[in-house]
Amino acid sequence: MNKQISSLTPFFNPQGVAVIGASTNPDKLGYGLARNLVQSKYQGALHYVNPKGGKLLGRPLYASILEVPDPVDLAILLIPAKAVPQALLQCGERGLPAAIIGSGGFRETGPEGAALEAECLQIAQAHQMRLLGPNCIGLLDTHLPVDATFLPPPGPLPGDVAFISHSGAICAALIDWARGQGFGLSKLVSLGNQADINETDVLKPVAADPHTRVLCLYLESVSDGLKFVSVASQVSPKKPIIALKVGRYASGQRAVASHTGALAGEDNAFNAAFHRAGVIRADTSEEMFDWARALAWCPLPRGRTVAVLTNAGGPGVNAVDAVESNGLKVAELKYETQAALGKHLPRAASLLNPVDMLASATPGQYAESLRILLSDPGVDSVLVILPPPPMFSSSAVASALIPVIHKTDKPVVITLMGESLIQETAAQFRAARIPEYRFPERAASALAILAQRAESLSSPPSKAQSGYQVDTDAVRAVFHEYKPDFEQASLPQEVSHQILAAYGIHTPPIGLARSPEEAKQLAEKFGYPVALKVASPDIIHKSDLGGVILDQRSSQAVAESYIRITRNIQSARPDARITGVHVQRMFPKGQEVIIGGVQDPMFGPLVMFGSGGVEVEDLKDVAFALAPLPLEEAERLLDKTWAGRKLDGYRNLPPADRGAVLDVLMRLAQLVADQPELEEIEINPLLVLPQGEGAYALDVRGRYA
Amino acid sequence: MNKQISSLTPFFNPQGVAVIGASTNPDKLGYGLARNLVQSKYQGALHYVNPKGGKLLGRPLYASILEVPDPVDLAILLIPAKAVPQALLQCGERGLPAAIIGSGGFRETGPEGAALEAECLQIAQAHQMRLLGPNCIGLLDTHLPVDATFLPPPGPLPGDVAFISHSGAICAALIDWARGQGFGLSKLVSLGNQADINETDVLKPVAADPHTRVLCLYLESVSDGLKFVSVASQVSPKKPIIALKVGRYASGQRAVASHTGALAGEDNAFNAAFHRAGVIRADTSEEMFDWARALAWCPLPRGRTVAVLTNAGGPGVNAVDAVESNGLKVAELKYETQAALGKHLPRAASLLNPVDMLASATPGQYAESLRILLSDPGVDSVLVILPPPPMFSSSAVASALIPVIHKTDKPVVITLMGESLIQETAAQFRAARIPEYRFPERAASALAILAQRAESLSSPPSKAQSGYQVDTDAVRAVFHEYKPDFEQASLPQEVSHQILAAYGIHTPPIGLARSPEEAKQLAEKFGYPVALKVASPDIIHKSDLGGVILDQRSSQAVAESYIRITRNIQSARPDARITGVHVQRMFPKGQEVIIGGVQDPMFGPLVMFGSGGVEVEDLKDVAFALAPLPLEEAERLLDKTWAGRKLDGYRNLPPADRGAVLDVLMRLAQLVADQPELEEIEINPLLVLPQGEGAYALDVRGRYA
Repeated sequence: MNKQISSLTPFFNPQGVAVIGASTNPDKLGYGLARNLVQSKYQGALHYVNPKGGKLLGRPLYASILEVPDPVDLAILLIPAKAVPQALLQCGERGLPAAIIGSGGFRETGPEGAALEAECLQIAQAHQMRLLGPNCIGLLDTHLPVDATFLPPPGPLPGDVAFISHSGAICAALIDWARGQGFGLSKLVSLGNQADINETDVLKPVAADPHTRVLCLYLESVSDGLKFVSVASQVSPKKPIIALKVGRYASGQRAVASHTGALAGEDNAFNAAFHRAGVIRADTSEEMFDWARALAWCPLPRGRTVAVLTNAGGPGVNAVDAVESNGLKVAELKYETQAALGKHLPRAASLLNPVDMLASATPGQYAESLRILLSDPGVDSVLVILPPPPMFSSSAVASALIPVIHKTDKPVVITLMGESLIQETAAQFRAARIPEYRFPERAASALAILAQRAESLSSPPSKAQSGYQVDTDAVRAVFHEYKPDFEQASLPQEVSHQILAAYGIHTPPIGLARSPEEAKQLAEKFGYPVALKVASPDIIHKSDLGGVILDQRSSQAVAESYIRITRNIQSARPDARITGVHVQRMFPKGQEVIIGGVQDPMFGPLVMFGSGGVEVEDLKDVAFALAPLPLEEAERLLDKTWAGRKLDGYRNLPPADRGAVLDVLMRLAQLVADQPELEEIEINPLLVLPQGEGAYALDVRGRYA
Repeated sequence: MNKQISSLTPFFNPQGVAVIGASTNPDKLGYGLARNLVQSKYQGALHYVNPKGGKLLGRPLYASILEVPDPVDLAILLIPAKAVPQALLQCGERGLPAAIIGSGGFRETGPEGAALEAECLQIAQAHQMRLLGPNCIGLLDTHLPVDATFLPPPGPLPGDVAFISHSGAICAALIDWARGQGFGLSKLVSLGNQADINETDVLKPVAADPHTRVLCLYLESVSDGLKFVSVASQVSPKKPIIALKVGRYASGQRAVASHTGALAGEDNAFNAAFHRAGVIRADTSEEMFDWARALAWCPLPRGRTVAVLTNAGGPGVNAVDAVESNGLKVAELKYETQAALGKHLPRAASLLNPVDMLASATPGQYAESLRILLSDPGVDSVLVILPPPPMFSSSAVASALIPVIHKTDKPVVITLMGESLIQETAAQFRAARIPEYRFPERAASALAILAQRAESLSSPPSKAQSGYQVDTDAVRAVFHEYKPDFEQASLPQEVSHQILAAYGIHTPPIGLARSPEEAKQLAEKFGYPVALKVASPDIIHKSDLGGVILDQRSSQAVAESYIRITRNIQSARPDARITGVHVQRMFPKGQEVIIGGVQDPMFGPLVMFGSGGVEVEDLKDVAFALAPLPLEEAERLLDKTWAGRKLDGYRNLPPADRGAVLDVLMRLAQLVADQPELEEIEINPLLVLPQGEGAYALDVRGRYA
């Protein structure tokens, strides 16, 4: 960690900067960059390089980086792509530890550009030089200060939110948006093509900045899924990370043989990864910015209750709707609170939550009511509604509210309704670091994120359970032995069962019969009733084709079913290879769930839990997590799904063995984490018997990579 | 309709206005109102009334309305509540047809105020005078023009969106918001306490205004549900209505005896009513305003495909995500379109959708690319992304785009990213009546609403199917005969069956056995297998208590089951009355759905369709509609639910008799519409046999009001 930070230090705290491609033409980006460095009041040494010579902004233009005097530890290149390798070579010779390539014309333009980019990376690595870009806007720090971007002014105000972006285009919009909304940035890092430095590399250096209170990521993907999760997991308990991941619907097509595989799209994998890493996922850019301000400025609430303080009924009801729909609770006010409110509000005011002071509310009534609400121990946070008041100026109300908000350790957010009339008031709140929003829905969403953050800090993620009695060698041996037979195909049922057995997951007694006579013998051995299922490496959805017959209770019936199944399959899929028919002991009815595991190309092993059966993909009552799985996260998968919640019993459904489900889920997670060759494995259904009686994998389907 | 509009004419086009309570004190609302009428350049006669006498804004202050000279047809009262009845009486004597009571202090303050309000209404009715308010902001019309509100200036810009509000407080914020966002209003009506005129009354007069292109409603409730639906249904095909209904979570508690009753909360009822009325429901104020601009300004698209045009990759991907998540489709560009784009864009540009012109895109390239995209017949609408461009001004891009957008009959919306840098460009687009949004998600949501509007106009709602062979008299006779026995209780099973039979809904042969011997006889008569179910007016969830035994195949088994059921119930619920046990013929397996009907206190008869069983309330795979039900809406209920979609067959589930389900659904809708005394009726499950074999109500539960 320290080494990594230190090699990036010249980017975040350069002693001297050289602009290669500084231009005297104000229309060129090389001029903008030179100007921004000066205007940002960068205090280190600053040098401009341009072979044309002359002067720029009072400084000499050196012919090459080799001529630039000390100190210089960061070069910024804004020259045509083809000239970059040569200039970079000179930087290397000069012994520079860091360079930003702002120029485009690399990998983003096709194979030729990609070759050029590879050449640059080679040069950098040969000279132990770190690279940011190419094809990026650069970076800036409002506190150091340094503005090493070529964006048109004005730059962002100093603030507490850092922004790290895969997209350069969004940076200009973001700075302007943030300035227009009156909030500041601490740092901005545009990553460009990420030839060397990627989003994960900068997380710790940016989080180490004392001015940064929140990190916002605009992600198109991540470079190394597991490393991202590992690094973000270390950063997120210290400073909140909000990610906007675009490309949600760009589905990564891949061959799948199970429901788990079909459902484990990129989006579910990212959700699972963000959750494990403690990263808050925003669905829209607007949400990201709304949440960032609240996380940067507000104390965290002790719980999820919200009091709404308003001078108007309609917006109050609107706010209560928004509170509920964001998963927060409308606080029940104590009798003492209502009495205190009653003393200084008109008789017709509503003293229940939402507290409606009526349109006549004075600045003093706003402040005193807020103070009373904050002193109620049942109130965790307050949402104040402030439309342009008919009687008093909203600015006077803000002046009265701000000292009360500064004194409390509970979060207070403002819905400041309107637009042009409330600009001055908005500026007051911003200067006081109190988040204000135009609409109650957005204010409530910000309070919800504060509650989520508080909850995630109070229950730090635990390590995945380990120390299971699992037999990894047995699984490897199985793979070794069987491999030649089933490459690119589903694992035979008995192999899947051996694998589950090695990980302590129970399956019902089962045997492969190759004749009706063998089927009868197995049934007599296991006891009745039994189920019969076709054994074929070519059939995935057995029951669809008449390949499954349940509940056979005599040897005669078993023999007949054997014959019926083979006929069904032969007529439905004449080309399918039939190895025989599995005979399996049946259990009494219980609840049924699905548990699956899959290797995600980005984040490695994932597990899925939810409602099983044949309608899995349509009901979509499933949840994903990264494997291996800590107990808390296994619990969360159960809590998030209806399949998991009803394990506690529902109507005439008796409570089922929830503990056994958690155990199987964590063991299966261990299995997919231990065995990367196991591309997919899915238990559907897992039969869950009443409490204390365990759970059995009735059907399992696996695929070897 | 004409009569209603004409009695409201003085509100919307007054010949002369008298302000009762006009004040010379600039701090008083009575001054603000007098000033707004002058400043809005109202062209009719304008009179001020104040017993103190003197002059105000160059006009005399009359002692009472009786002294005001003609013409005057609208009085606006802003005097203390207690003085209102007397002043209103004088208005009546003066023969005024219309009055606005702006003053508060009425029903909203408690019983005394309510009495005062009732008195005012009585006076108005005695004098054939219509009332707006009390406790309202008033109204304004930017085109007439007239501003009869007391809100602080500036008023709204003239525009095409009318706003009708139950909340007065939100009006000031709305005007300011609209002005800040640079779009105008046509009319604003603040309804206040609605002593006389309500939201439904003003719909047609407001829609009749030629300047109004979209109606926005801020609703806390509706005064008369069915009348609202009827009037809104007539208005919405002509002009779009967007409603923001607050109080979503204020659940109306009521006694329920069925899943349908439990799920038919106020929110589902409003959704069903809005759908029937063609009203677009917004979830947030922001959505309402975003959609209003698009509906007011854009042509409607022919379909759901969207092309995204961008100069930056990140926001382009972001926009595609937003397009998909709003239920729109990313257009596939024709080869010719890609070729034409390729001719004038750089080699590295992406010619697939999203079309990425790269950061170097010129205003000319923006305009030409847009023109090419619009000429592709597979493109129904275009979302243009415009971040502050690095090379050219966004204003130059806007100037190039606007003529292209004005020439097309396809909707084009702009994502204009940033805030302060793009103010001028935003103003350009607004002046050109082209909607621009700060974020791609909001632009996509606006396009989705345009598509929804186009679809709803192209499939006008049909009348509910009628002419069923139903026997309403039979049902009334049943009610008449049974009423004394089951007041406040569930209907006995055989009564429910009679009711369904009268409406042509099939039930399996069933009989009530009062002894094991009778049960055996019934079973022999119906044929095997049979089901046995306890008959008790006190048991709702029969299967939970062991009151149901299925699949009995011999007379011996039937007799034993009879005894078992009665014992189960006696031990589980010793106080329950047991009438006997129903014996019912069982059918082969099929699909099972739930169909229910309930009388909603606001909107009358509602029907529900969805996934049945015992988990109805948790799976929530249900949809509601107002009854009676046109075929199209019955189809929609099936399309909206997984239960409905899988009737077409799914995996090894054969297609079921979808037509029979639609038939039962419409018949049940007819039943609850015809029989308001039937408080609830629910078929759960309805067994749906394979195509052509019909559907049978296996269990039915009813409740009489």
